[in-house]
Amino acid sequence: MKCKAAVAWGPGQPLKIEEVDVQDPQKGEVLVRMVATGVCHTDAFTLSGEDPEGIFPAILGHEGAGVVEAVGEGVTSLKVGDHVIPLYTAECGECKFCKSGKTNLCQAVRETQGKGLMPDGTSRFSINGEPIFHYMGTSTFSEYSVVPEISLAKIHVDAPLEKVCLLGCGITTGIGAVLNTAKVEKGDTVAVFGLGGIGLSVIQGARMAGASRIIAIDINESKFEMAQQFGATDCVNPKNFDKPIQEVIVGMTDGGVDYSFECIGNVQVMRSALECCHKGWGESIIIGVAGAGQEISTRPFQLVTGRVWKGSAFGGVKGRSQLPGYVEDYMNGKIEIDPFVTHTMPLEQINEAFDLMHKGESIRTVILFDK
Amino acid sequence: MKCKAAVAWGPGQPLKIEEVDVQDPQKGEVLVRMVATGVCHTDAFTLSGEDPEGIFPAILGHEGAGVVEAVGEGVTSLKVGDHVIPLYTAECGECKFCKSGKTNLCQAVRETQGKGLMPDGTSRFSINGEPIFHYMGTSTFSEYSVVPEISLAKIHVDAPLEKVCLLGCGITTGIGAVLNTAKVEKGDTVAVFGLGGIGLSVIQGARMAGASRIIAIDINESKFEMAQQFGATDCVNPKNFDKPIQEVIVGMTDGGVDYSFECIGNVQVMRSALECCHKGWGESIIIGVAGAGQEISTRPFQLVTGRVWKGSAFGGVKGRSQLPGYVEDYMNGKIEIDPFVTHTMPLEQINEAFDLMHKGESIRTVILFDK
Repeated sequence: MKCKAAVAWGPGQPLKIEEVDVQDPQKGEVLVRMVATGVCHTDAFTLSGEDPEGIFPAILGHEGAGVVEAVGEGVTSLKVGDHVIPLYTAECGECKFCKSGKTNLCQAVRETQGKGLMPDGTSRFSINGEPIFHYMGTSTFSEYSVVPEISLAKIHVDAPLEKVCLLGCGITTGIGAVLNTAKVEKGDTVAVFGLGGIGLSVIQGARMAGASRIIAIDINESKFEMAQQFGATDCVNPKNFDKPIQEVIVGMTDGGVDYSFECIGNVQVMRSALECCHKGWGESIIIGVAGAGQEISTRPFQLVTGRVWKGSAFGGVKGRSQLPGYVEDYMNGKIEIDPFVTHTMPLEQINEAFDLMHKGESIRTVILFDK
Repeated sequence: MKCKAAVAWGPGQPLKIEEVDVQDPQKGEVLVRMVATGVCHTDAFTLSGEDPEGIFPAILGHEGAGVVEAVGEGVTSLKVGDHVIPLYTAECGECKFCKSGKTNLCQAVRETQGKGLMPDGTSRFSINGEPIFHYMGTSTFSEYSVVPEISLAKIHVDAPLEKVCLLGCGITTGIGAVLNTAKVEKGDTVAVFGLGGIGLSVIQGARMAGASRIIAIDINESKFEMAQQFGATDCVNPKNFDKPIQEVIVGMTDGGVDYSFECIGNVQVMRSALECCHKGWGESIIIGVAGAGQEISTRPFQLVTGRVWKGSAFGGVKGRSQLPGYVEDYMNGKIEIDPFVTHTMPLEQINEAFDLMHKGESIRTVILFDK
């Protein structure tokens, strides 16, 4: 079949709307008609060329929601008409990782996914017979996408896809990092570095967990209002101080916070986030993705005196088994998504969505496909 | 009173046996007659001048055991004749840290202890009226030492002090890092970097926890025999490989170990220890103390993909409440100490103990005071 998709032809170039050929889903694969997709910093990171694993030409996008249009051979857990969220972190239930009970990082399709291919090592997208690569196993910037069955979460049929698509990445990543990775408890203190979609979701998660103090940190003060709406108790601009931000936070909190979250991808900020944690027990969680080759560093004394440095990917959430619950939490009013959707537009205007993000004017733009 | 002590007059100089004046214990303090003390790498580190917090002249030593000789005003938990192990990590039971339930890093006397002084800001040691500094709040290289009450663990009166003195630092640090900090469980895989007293104790702790595989790593192969005696299942010399040791370990263990421990204080090894951990859940614990200004580094991707970087001080053990149990575990045969004591000698030969340690010829030399 043929459909419209936004194709990334090369690093640094704007996306181009093209008519692409989409092959039928093969064994264990599913054809999804996309209804909505968010545009996330990770898409921009890959498009910029800084992502060492970026491959072109490709169809980007990893924060989508849609409807099953067809299933390939052997697909048993999904049927035509099911509502789904594509997962860039699959859940096969059978690999060492899935079975460990300690991580959500299923490795079943990781290798081919990293190469922009389906698990059989080929692509389902092409233009004039030339293959176009998949991206993160999801490629949601296309009217239709082929996704492995194990990379699709089946969600409640009444959930509004133009909202819950954002649970495919940012919001779940932020909330999950608080609830699954850090396991913040009632009364804990929290610092959040970077107030984009992830950072605001961390704030939301911290409020859900009952944190007593949520310190929101950004150099763009226009983000502070929304941070407060989501539950931030303090907003701090590091530029307003002539000492390192970690010292400011330590001073504000009688020794440091119980948990900190880096939601930017800046290795210097990752260090600040660690060092603003309380001696003896403070834990810092890295969520942001740093540029190729960049490294974090600190004095080992920071760890020997009890701080813990960890990271979180997709909030530690197992997509197929846990994401449907996040969707229902949204439907029950436990999770807020609507304030994140600051803009909506059709696929044709997708480059505008990137512009808004780069200017810091949007939290999330949701692309709505024609129905 | 006057007694014999080994005084560190300055960085890089051998210790000198001197007659020192020891003041009576003041309020909240206790006079301890030392019976035995180990000589540890941390003493050597401070003596070398590399320890940025090192102060001279001082009486070093922090791995001792002795008998209460006199108590100062207000001391209620100890009486003359009690057997005790001095603690460089106090346990006041009342500070924010003690009450947190999350750390053993009591801060009650930290500030004065770091300055080589008793909690009232003065020293109890002097020679010809000139003060000699305390060290780590313990100063066990002296026939008599004054120690804060909250820095003394009261132990079973039948425990052999010339053995259990080693529970004052290295052995407890290693075992505690495994049981308290990492919480190794039955069947887990473990890598131990550095086979000194701490590393061997980590191996012992891992065996106690039921680890299925314990990989011992050192460039000094003469350590391997003892490592195996304590429970190492594999011994690896990084010099025998032309690839980074982390890759060797990952290859040996189908993806990496569940837990790794750095027991040297080398920041490059700390990185290897982290990176040999299994994706998704591996945890690396830093025990070694690095030189001033040295930093650890890695790619943040290591953490985002599920590895955890932490540290451990005194094995996370609360000295007053938990160390007596370690002493009883030794008496019951659950903890081995005897093989660590490779040499004993009187205080007069203490510089020889440092030499043996530097040459890698001893695990621990225990200094025996005249009775």
